Amino acid sequence: MSPEQRERELRGLIAPIAEELDACSVDLTRELDSASEAVREVVAHANRYRGKRLRAANVLLVASACGRVTPAHVKIAAIVEMIHMATLVHDDVLDGAEVRRRVATPNARFGNEVAVLLGDWIYARAFSISTKLESQTCSRVLAETTATICRGEIEQSLAKYDFGLTVERYLEMIDAKTAALYAASCELGARYADAREECVRAARVFGRSLGLAFQIVDDCLDLDGSESEVGKSLGTDVVEGKITLPILHLLARGGPRERRRVEEIFRAEGSFDRVGALAAELDLIGAIEASYADAERYLRAALDALGPFPPSPARDCMAAMAEYVLCRRW
Amino acid sequence: MSPEQRERELRGLIAPIAEELDACSVDLTRELDSASEAVREVVAHANRYRGKRLRAANVLLVASACGRVTPAHVKIAAIVEMIHMATLVHDDVLDGAEVRRRVATPNARFGNEVAVLLGDWIYARAFSISTKLESQTCSRVLAETTATICRGEIEQSLAKYDFGLTVERYLEMIDAKTAALYAASCELGARYADAREECVRAARVFGRSLGLAFQIVDDCLDLDGSESEVGKSLGTDVVEGKITLPILHLLARGGPRERRRVEEIFRAEGSFDRVGALAAELDLIGAIEASYADAERYLRAALDALGPFPPSPARDCMAAMAEYVLCRRW
Repeated sequence: MSPEQRERELRGLIAPIAEELDACSVDLTRELDSASEAVREVVAHANRYRGKRLRAANVLLVASACGRVTPAHVKIAAIVEMIHMATLVHDDVLDGAEVRRRVATPNARFGNEVAVLLGDWIYARAFSISTKLESQTCSRVLAETTATICRGEIEQSLAKYDFGLTVERYLEMIDAKTAALYAASCELGARYADAREECVRAARVFGRSLGLAFQIVDDCLDLDGSESEVGKSLGTDVVEGKITLPILHLLARGGPRERRRVEEIFRAEGSFDRVGALAAELDLIGAIEASYADAERYLRAALDALGPFPPSPARDCMAAMAEYVLCRRW
Repeated sequence: MSPEQRERELRGLIAPIAEELDACSVDLTRELDSASEAVREVVAHANRYRGKRLRAANVLLVASACGRVTPAHVKIAAIVEMIHMATLVHDDVLDGAEVRRRVATPNARFGNEVAVLLGDWIYARAFSISTKLESQTCSRVLAETTATICRGEIEQSLAKYDFGLTVERYLEMIDAKTAALYAASCELGARYADAREECVRAARVFGRSLGLAFQIVDDCLDLDGSESEVGKSLGTDVVEGKITLPILHLLARGGPRERRRVEEIFRAEGSFDRVGALAAELDLIGAIEASYADAERYLRAALDALGPFPPSPARDCMAAMAEYVLCRRW
């Protein structure tokens, strides 16, 4: 799919809040500016990193589905994207990634030291902006969520090469590292629209389910996606020893032979095509399909959560967003 | 000086707020706890990192000098120490440091990945706690200050091996990376004691001056301190190409021969004793003494800032703190 096709596909999903999402991007660029010339150059680079802005879109879509998109929502959408950007900057340092979204990563361009500090700066700037909103809710929810994200990533890092990982613990980890920020984005969209508590709760369930599905699909794409479609290096989970859902299905469905084979592939050294070897095993046993089936269950939960929202174009887009997350190939 | 002597020396400085500082330490340990077992182990390790707690002491001393130490101050003191701790965790990753305060660094113990994420987690936790205070002031001031610290560190990182660095830019950098957190600690001590605006301003000036002096002395100790007294590896600035005030004095006072010699020493490879070679040059030209004279000027500014505070044991301790920062050998 060409970048233009992707752009069109995404624009359809966010039509009811397209204007606000553009305002959010302008805001983001302004807030990422710094009085310091050195920082300005480094940050401008990170800003080219901008992706699908799904988290920002969720803040605004939920707000619109609750009947009220305010200037505070645009700010919150920008803050959420900044937090996501900071996690990406640090992830790329830790993975030694050189390219993301076809742009050199900050660590590749400025070195690890500047990249770690840049991530810290973006986090701090995001919190700083949140403290200028009228209520403390946004600051509180997003600081807690950021701690949750880091907790999930620490757990994941410590669980590398742990072939005894359970599906339950895997789900807890992706809940923390990915779904928490989706849930928080949707919650804040509802809270700052003064929605009823029932809608706030439903918004959280929608966001969390969407986030879980998103991460499962991401983990599948890392194993069977096409690099030219996804736009980043794939197979990195295997290289780093991350045990994801398809691998867990393979281990659960296979016998001792499969277990030995998986461990052998993960621990293989040199230029051996680990992803290719794994793909053959995964295929044989239907582990990718089983993972997509899990993702689909979360998407159904996301759709079910839309109940309390009155019919509206924004609500329809939330439903379409859920479908998109499952079908995306990038 | 033995650890016991140090402890006594510091306890004298903080006598009026000793109880509150102990409460702050208890608070810190509680707040650093995590429901996640993996995170708990990693964080418990970082908590052994605890140092002189000068920033926490400043929050409490200023509050006491303003006539009112509240439970919010104890919280703020803990938050400030957490932010400082997070910067240390990341600094140690970036410097590849293996020991700090006689304890293995988190990166040495758990690897860089976990250590970067741990720093992020501590930052997020600190902000999260601040959002539970009644007013947004603490969250706002500390988020802005953290962005300032990171900005200063990014600038310093980009200025490595820049022998054209000016004293003015050096001062701007240490103002951001070190003095800003001292200034914020003192400001918050005054604000949460409902002090008059004149005292808040004076508290900021006191903290900022103290912080500048502290960093200049730190930069001197890195070049001429004793490792057994300071308790961490010294000479690291030279190894990393950081141009600090003594070097700037040496460059300013020396001629072309000294400039060539400094560049040669900084760029020397292998096991060459760079610090020893620099010490000879610095000694000859009185560059360390000149730097201490600068630090003394800032300390005088700190003492002058005490004017608006009424006489009190806490105010006397603030004055003693300033003297201590200049005379400390660790």
